Amino acid sequence: MLNLVAVKRIALRALSEDIGSGDITTALTVPPTSTSRAHIVSRESGVIAGMPVAEMVFAQVAKVYGVEKPEFRIRAFDGCPIAPGQVAAEIAGPTAVILTAERTALNFLQRMSGIAAKTAHMVDLVKGTSAKIIDTRKTTPGLRVLEKYAVRMGGGQNHRFGLYDAILIKDNHIKAAGGIKEAIQAAKAGAPHAIQIEVEADTIEQVRMALETGANMILLDNMTPATLREAVALCKGRALTEASGGVTEESVREIAETGVDLISIGALTHSVKALDLSLEIL
Amino acid sequence: MLNLVAVKRIALRALSEDIGSGDITTALTVPPTSTSRAHIVSRESGVIAGMPVAEMVFAQVAKVYGVEKPEFRIRAFDGCPIAPGQVAAEIAGPTAVILTAERTALNFLQRMSGIAAKTAHMVDLVKGTSAKIIDTRKTTPGLRVLEKYAVRMGGGQNHRFGLYDAILIKDNHIKAAGGIKEAIQAAKAGAPHAIQIEVEADTIEQVRMALETGANMILLDNMTPATLREAVALCKGRALTEASGGVTEESVREIAETGVDLISIGALTHSVKALDLSLEIL
Amino acid sequence: MLNLVAVKRIALRALSEDIGSGDITTALTVPPTSTSRAHIVSRESGVIAGMPVAEMVFAQVAKVYGVEKPEFRIRAFDGCPIAPGQVAAEIAGPTAVILTAERTALNFLQRMSGIAAKTAHMVDLVKGTSAKIIDTRKTTPGLRVLEKYAVRMGGGQNHRFGLYDAILIKDNHIKAAGGIKEAIQAAKAGAPHAIQIEVEADTIEQVRMALETGANMILLDNMTPATLREAVALCKGRALTEASGGVTEESVREIAETGVDLISIGALTHSVKALDLSLEIL
Amino acid sequence: MLNLVAVKRIALRALSEDIGSGDITTALTVPPTSTSRAHIVSRESGVIAGMPVAEMVFAQVAKVYGVEKPEFRIRAFDGCPIAPGQVAAEIAGPTAVILTAERTALNFLQRMSGIAAKTAHMVDLVKGTSAKIIDTRKTTPGLRVLEKYAVRMGGGQNHRFGLYDAILIKDNHIKAAGGIKEAIQAAKAGAPHAIQIEVEADTIEQVRMALETGANMILLDNMTPATLREAVALCKGRALTEASGGVTEESVREIAETGVDLISIGALTHSVKALDLSLEIL
Amino acid sequence: MLNLVAVKRIALRALSEDIGSGDITTALTVPPTSTSRAHIVSRESGVIAGMPVAEMVFAQVAKVYGVEKPEFRIRAFDGCPIAPGQVAAEIAGPTAVILTAERTALNFLQRMSGIAAKTAHMVDLVKGTSAKIIDTRKTTPGLRVLEKYAVRMGGGQNHRFGLYDAILIKDNHIKAAGGIKEAIQAAKAGAPHAIQIEVEADTIEQVRMALETGANMILLDNMTPATLREAVALCKGRALTEASGGVTEESVREIAETGVDLISIGALTHSVKALDLSLEIL
Amino acid sequence: MLNLVAVKRIALRALSEDIGSGDITTALTVPPTSTSRAHIVSRESGVIAGMPVAEMVFAQVAKVYGVEKPEFRIRAFDGCPIAPGQVAAEIAGPTAVILTAERTALNFLQRMSGIAAKTAHMVDLVKGTSAKIIDTRKTTPGLRVLEKYAVRMGGGQNHRFGLYDAILIKDNHIKAAGGIKEAIQAAKAGAPHAIQIEVEADTIEQVRMALETGANMILLDNMTPATLREAVALCKGRALTEASGGVTEESVREIAETGVDLISIGALTHSVKALDLSLEIL
Repeated sequence: MLNLVAVKRIALRALSEDIGSGDITTALTVPPTSTSRAHIVSRESGVIAGMPVAEMVFAQVAKVYGVEKPEFRIRAFDGCPIAPGQVAAEIAGPTAVILTAERTALNFLQRMSGIAAKTAHMVDLVKGTSAKIIDTRKTTPGLRVLEKYAVRMGGGQNHRFGLYDAILIKDNHIKAAGGIKEAIQAAKAGAPHAIQIEVEADTIEQVRMALETGANMILLDNMTPATLREAVALCKGRALTEASGGVTEESVREIAETGVDLISIGALTHSVKALDLSLEIL
Repeated sequence: MLNLVAVKRIALRALSEDIGSGDITTALTVPPTSTSRAHIVSRESGVIAGMPVAEMVFAQVAKVYGVEKPEFRIRAFDGCPIAPGQVAAEIAGPTAVILTAERTALNFLQRMSGIAAKTAHMVDLVKGTSAKIIDTRKTTPGLRVLEKYAVRMGGGQNHRFGLYDAILIKDNHIKAAGGIKEAIQAAKAGAPHAIQIEVEADTIEQVRMALETGANMILLDNMTPATLREAVALCKGRALTEASGGVTEESVREIAETGVDLISIGALTHSVKALDLSLEIL
Repeated sequence: MLNLVAVKRIALRALSEDIGSGDITTALTVPPTSTSRAHIVSRESGVIAGMPVAEMVFAQVAKVYGVEKPEFRIRAFDGCPIAPGQVAAEIAGPTAVILTAERTALNFLQRMSGIAAKTAHMVDLVKGTSAKIIDTRKTTPGLRVLEKYAVRMGGGQNHRFGLYDAILIKDNHIKAAGGIKEAIQAAKAGAPHAIQIEVEADTIEQVRMALETGANMILLDNMTPATLREAVALCKGRALTEASGGVTEESVREIAETGVDLISIGALTHSVKALDLSLEIL
Repeated sequence: MLNLVAVKRIALRALSEDIGSGDITTALTVPPTSTSRAHIVSRESGVIAGMPVAEMVFAQVAKVYGVEKPEFRIRAFDGCPIAPGQVAAEIAGPTAVILTAERTALNFLQRMSGIAAKTAHMVDLVKGTSAKIIDTRKTTPGLRVLEKYAVRMGGGQNHRFGLYDAILIKDNHIKAAGGIKEAIQAAKAGAPHAIQIEVEADTIEQVRMALETGANMILLDNMTPATLREAVALCKGRALTEASGGVTEESVREIAETGVDLISIGALTHSVKALDLSLEIL
Repeated sequence: MLNLVAVKRIALRALSEDIGSGDITTALTVPPTSTSRAHIVSRESGVIAGMPVAEMVFAQVAKVYGVEKPEFRIRAFDGCPIAPGQVAAEIAGPTAVILTAERTALNFLQRMSGIAAKTAHMVDLVKGTSAKIIDTRKTTPGLRVLEKYAVRMGGGQNHRFGLYDAILIKDNHIKAAGGIKEAIQAAKAGAPHAIQIEVEADTIEQVRMALETGANMILLDNMTPATLREAVALCKGRALTEASGGVTEESVREIAETGVDLISIGALTHSVKALDLSLEIL
Repeated sequence: MLNLVAVKRIALRALSEDIGSGDITTALTVPPTSTSRAHIVSRESGVIAGMPVAEMVFAQVAKVYGVEKPEFRIRAFDGCPIAPGQVAAEIAGPTAVILTAERTALNFLQRMSGIAAKTAHMVDLVKGTSAKIIDTRKTTPGLRVLEKYAVRMGGGQNHRFGLYDAILIKDNHIKAAGGIKEAIQAAKAGAPHAIQIEVEADTIEQVRMALETGANMILLDNMTPATLREAVALCKGRALTEASGGVTEESVREIAETGVDLISIGALTHSVKALDLSLEIL
């Protein structure tokens, strides 16, 4: 589910940032009656995400000009793989609308597709294991809803959306609470009933303490595959396990094979290579 | 100049996205009276950008809790290089404020520092040539003001901020206007007097036509070093030259040595590796 | 935790609604230099909630007038019982600020205290049982964050904050999914890992099916005490139970004694009698 | 008149509060192509108010999903009485839209209908007298425009909308102005010409002073029926009279029979029992 | 009363319009540590209005730069006359703040002082008569609250603030209602009790009808002095009279001498000559 | 280009200011089913600007009432001259919509047309010379985008839109920078490449220094025609010249004949006489 009212708000903000007091190049060079057909084409392999956002950008630019929104025909839907040279979408409408919208639409689409492609690659690398690839809160400020959606389009799953919809007790919370036991008990006493308690553990000793106090999920932070394996064995049947910390293309398979339930990767959203897409007027 | 009223608005949006109906972990585990000291530490080499944004995030979270803002002492100012293990900032204040602000502050700081570091690296690679590294409009929607600032902190310069403060006639504008000559003339007739006319050219022939019609700047799109050199020679003394298109760490030096005035690089902002920073409670 | 940045936004909205183009009575009759001391006094027994909101209202009205905010000394803190005639807060400052803020501050305080008082009464009625009193999503549009806070101040606990932080499969979802089993399985497959699955059941048969498919919580809708007791016995050790539907002061004790874990009451927030508070200038 | 642009803004705020990062239950269990028909049904007797608000909620949720708005056929219009079991509205459209909108639409409709029903009951109790039932500023912060509208739908009339559209000199204004005479004269000298002066009086003596200084309306605060009668006699033909203070179902008739022009009742909006409405998928 | 929270909102909007992505001239030429003293000086005679708005602009620009707000010492307060060469305000603080704020602060101050000066001139022209000079709704969109305040500073009084706080039945309402009698009766039946009924009349005949149906105020539209005199005589003691329509410096005295109570002048706000003020760095 | 999304935002703000809690006159006197036809007619000669804004106002008021937008047929398009008695637009739709929208629509249209008319008059006065009439930043706060558009509709051209899209070094910047040479060099070193450097000069000496340091445009401030002529001769072929300061209908021709390229006039927007337009129901 992608809340299109939220998407509209985000798209308008981006357009306002780019258009400001007006697209002066287009105003001076493009006749108001000119219409065009255009393609959004990929120059590399990847996975598409963000088509409804791109479509919204074109629709809103049409409102800027007070004209009908361009026809926007999606050829590669969100979540679908795309090959170099493949057409992702066809657009037809006023040339001014297409040119003013182009950059903003691509900025969304390239970033979201970059995330989806990276996620899909990671998911592919752990295929056959029981591990699931999940994201983190290391998203671009203001775009979390889009980036978490892109992760899903790449075949990943979402960890919590924010500080409000899950409990994750980290080492700093433990210090402040006066101990791992105290922290978990305080959380259990006051937590909403539908929300489980996840605790960060750096050592096998901490994993044991977390299990004893009744943690439902354990984040295994920066452990070696050997230690991970040991932790997973301890937790089996008692708590869900999440491996976290510096996971890369090189290490993800070995981590997955330790039997962890979840592998969270900040780089899915904090270090993204935009997918190389371009808009071509026909 | 970084408009701190705009920064505050962006920071509040990011915090609202992350905090939502409340930081439930902190509410349950951290005593209201607990205070802490913390360091923001780098785990790799790079260039810092975004300290005023991070400081604003901590100040706004203090308002969320209705308490005094934490002391925030900057140890590595924007634009300064940083080494692994080096402390970038020291923070002291209520533990709850620090923990609730941590992720959002780092999300800004890591992305902006990543941009600054990448820019500084590119600037370094062309040292000794007359070429300047500039950015593009391929920025994260909603964060352009921060990302263009980060480019400056990395030693780069800014191209236009949006569609409103420069004229850049691309091939699609030329088509719609009915030719390169027509497009440039239309732009000259109506352009604000303080703004120069830049035109995109893919071939030497187009460079010639642009010069003849009086373009002030020419964007040389995806040309080989040899062609670039020829174009630069033609333009010398008549128009500023900008090389653009797929510039990488590998190619940037050779491009700079052709004598172009400006090298614009979309990847400075569209494909960023976050700088690895973390917050550690002491 | 009460997010005071959110509270400020809500307070400003309420003040704008009340002040509009200006408090003409005060402007015409109160000299700008006049200062006063005032008490907020209760005329009945109850529980206080909303003091930080009231304080924020006075602080914002001071900004409307461009003067220092009045001194606001809380005498009955949120969550504390109050008796008829008891002073809840003392205020000292410009008379104009106090009179312009009075009604809006009381509107918040009376409603929130009304909710806290009602919740505290319900909590009191089930004392000695293991049942917890929780709220619902039947809150006043725009004020949910305040009303859920007031429930906590009355000793109740919060059910989910919205559609986003819990899964509650109701009969209509079951119909659309094609059956209770299908609905639960679909939810389990895609739900965030920290969030448990709650299912509504109207009959013992449905309770059984929900348990078999692995529901974590079961909402027992409008059941008689006898049926409740049977359902609770079935769920013991397998799923949390929530009694819901038309719970009143008269019925809540008997329901609690069936052994249910949670009793949710919409009327805590949808049908509230404001606590009778008034502001008196000394 | 109900400003639907204002209603849209209020509805969007309420939806954003409830939907947040997404309706996860519906996303997981309801197929996107599923459509349904539903009824909004009353479970008790009352008066309907808020149909345009409910319709707006469904229309906006359709925008959230990017689909056509559901058909919304009103069967009991605002201001009409409703009986237990009677259908108030019929809805047909995407199941996801109906289920995501349900709670927010009902939250508005139940509160507004509760106000209308309570008002209608009070109006009924004074039938045959010349007294009119009016509301106060004791409304829910942020919803005044809806609640004052609901009072009108119940057959009541509105007192002032805010501090800006009427002059009501209360005892605290009188103190600050230095006396009742001084307050009224100051108000008369500066008041907009279309706005009359209302003054609060607690005793017959104060009523006399207010009349002598030329007040146009007198608020008779917390007087016994006997005193009210005396005050009304004094004011006849010279000023409008408003009885105020703790008016209940039990006392309203006796107060009306004293001959007062207006009876203002804060509880119409500050202590409302929501009308029991539910949405049923057919 | 000037609502400074509203003023802040208006000032921020104006600054955002002017500063956009940054004051590039100041950023490049003014050293961050430079401080200055400046005077706002008048170049002509007039009346000052808008000092709190100008002060707010400087304070908000200080927030843009993240520095302390400049000292702002008012030498000519709102409502005071000013002579050519006279200093209206002294400012001391960071040069960058002063230069970035200058134009926006003056734009407010010059317009508001222009209105105050024009109003004061009109008030002066009718001195000795009983007529009061009032404004209309012909204000600049978005600035009504400031412009009505400026009228008061010039010694005028305010007509209604908007469509919401007075009833003014114009010829078009009369047509739609089916006659002057029908319109007035409908208004009387439903109008809030504190609001009087004003009716527009073009002829003596219409004045008579309005009086008979009980209008409280009559707008005498575009009448000659002779007709005005006749109308005023008819209304004496029965309704307030307002002369309206094309009132100029030349005609206002003669109109005032007809005995009308109020003279409304749209040009006070719709056709304003800005007062010639400038900011000079010392 | 007039950004209609920005126009909508401005129109909604203006309507909210005027309608507030409701158009009570129209609500009480105009039957909901009443429809009308109306003309917007000019009472004087001028130039029209703002038709899309007026149309937007009517469209938004239709949304306020929840009805179809009125038919709005433009008879005098933006930039066209209009004569006394000429119909500028025809409107047909619900009477309530037309009457509620009337004043706000006219407020925009009269101001913008006033600006266009004044500009056209100035442009006419310099006909045959090479001088162009341009505006300044002395616009109404919040309406710059509309007022700069109106200047273009009158045949003028726009100077910079704000502090962000041009460099204009004034005497205060020069002082702070430590000299004209220092200021220009600093600006050249850091300015975006597409933006030229304009410098203010009060004397021929300053013109010389500005030219020597490479200024691209020179603002000739308050010079006599003789000095202007001398300055223009010096700058010919080296820099664009702009005459500024107290330009009036009387002086503009003589200034234009000195050969300056641009004449900037603050009064185009800061001292406007509204064009006399009215709406007449047929």
